Amino acid sequence: MQRYKCTVEYDGSGFFGWQRQNHCPSIQQTMEEAIEKFAGHKVDIRTAGRTDAGVHALGQVVHFDLEKDFPCNKVIGATNFHLRPAPIALLDAVEVDNKFNARFSAKKRYYEYRIINRWAPVVIEHKRITHIKEHLDEIAMQEAANLLIGKHDFTSFRDSKCQAKSPVKTLDEVRVVRHGDRITIYVSAPSFLHHMVRNIAGTLKMVGSGRWTVADVQKALDAKDRRAAGPTAPPDGLYLTKVTYEI
Amino acid sequence: MQRYKCTVEYDGSGFFGWQRQNHCPSIQQTMEEAIEKFAGHKVDIRTAGRTDAGVHALGQVVHFDLEKDFPCNKVIGATNFHLRPAPIALLDAVEVDNKFNARFSAKKRYYEYRIINRWAPVVIEHKRITHIKEHLDEIAMQEAANLLIGKHDFTSFRDSKCQAKSPVKTLDEVRVVRHGDRITIYVSAPSFLHHMVRNIAGTLKMVGSGRWTVADVQKALDAKDRRAAGPTAPPDGLYLTKVTYEI
Repeated sequence: MQRYKCTVEYDGSGFFGWQRQNHCPSIQQTMEEAIEKFAGHKVDIRTAGRTDAGVHALGQVVHFDLEKDFPCNKVIGATNFHLRPAPIALLDAVEVDNKFNARFSAKKRYYEYRIINRWAPVVIEHKRITHIKEHLDEIAMQEAANLLIGKHDFTSFRDSKCQAKSPVKTLDEVRVVRHGDRITIYVSAPSFLHHMVRNIAGTLKMVGSGRWTVADVQKALDAKDRRAAGPTAPPDGLYLTKVTYEI
Repeated sequence: MQRYKCTVEYDGSGFFGWQRQNHCPSIQQTMEEAIEKFAGHKVDIRTAGRTDAGVHALGQVVHFDLEKDFPCNKVIGATNFHLRPAPIALLDAVEVDNKFNARFSAKKRYYEYRIINRWAPVVIEHKRITHIKEHLDEIAMQEAANLLIGKHDFTSFRDSKCQAKSPVKTLDEVRVVRHGDRITIYVSAPSFLHHMVRNIAGTLKMVGSGRWTVADVQKALDAKDRRAAGPTAPPDGLYLTKVTYEI
């Protein structure tokens, strides 16, 4: 058996998330079926982060084992060939030791949350960016974001169905950048809770629109209660951009 | 009659270009029908640049006359409402004097030609960026681009069906910028010939891939013959980004 580590890009808007479902298209199933077509046996793909329905990836990382030792270029070419016309692309592939695990070996995960802040509807990036009509104050959003950086109990920012044992996580970066009518929130951490980035984005939006003060975000964090933080922002603007490993 | 000047964004991939056609969807017809729905009379939209099939716009400028003097916000809101679900959005509207003409009053037009330069297929930006697999040398492309800046006879870079009286145009800017695997060619001029930006992009690609030298581009320009320059690059990567006016 040969283990491969691959970087994957996908437009998540037509999928019910990464994870295989019974009756809905998933990225995992689509990829597994594409690889099985040339590998000739069942393939089980593991991922660094199981993105939710509608969430995109520019740099998702996965691993899988093939019985035959295919050259990496063959794995990339054949997978992409059989993936067509699904909006999923294998960007690279490297052979790795079978101790490598896309999920458990990951050191840090990077996300971007993209917002278009204007009155007019979104057309070119429909389903690939979050549209917010009311003007957002990115300076206030950054001030609130600063409260979340570091090690905290993020109970208020995790989905009520989140299965992680501990709600304590360490955010390395929450950076709010505006270019014209586009606002991007860059978030990175060793790992995240379920819906954590979208709940942070939804909370920062409350501050940006002036409905919440920066102090309200501190209160939400301290409350350790999901109902205390802002709403879950839509998946359209969320991209998993990079996962880093020691090797 | 009140004349309005508007900025328009569109995803051109599903249209047969700006100009009204008999049996194919055009951006002009789609917009005219949307505005007619609230204006209650026939509307004739004029544009700064009649983009070709598949070409996009982030900052197209148009003008049209309405019998009733609608507030600008009403024009934007009602047009966008009736445009749904077409991938066209009115970004702004201002009332202008009826001497204003979107085409003839324009001082300068700005285009971007977007290339993704990698082996893997394009998925997130399918139809909205041009995919080139072979590695492009953006330094050589810029060197060749420099030969085109300024006032020249661009016969070699205009479509054989181009109806402009003179092939002489003045290019203010041809800038080739790489960020990772993305290359953007920024081009601006007071006006352009038919297919001129795509023919420039197609020619610069020949240099970037190493098949042509920079001197070959000088020869192509000097030849004043369409067959001497490179192929017409696909419309997917082309965006009309801005049009400027004195007022």
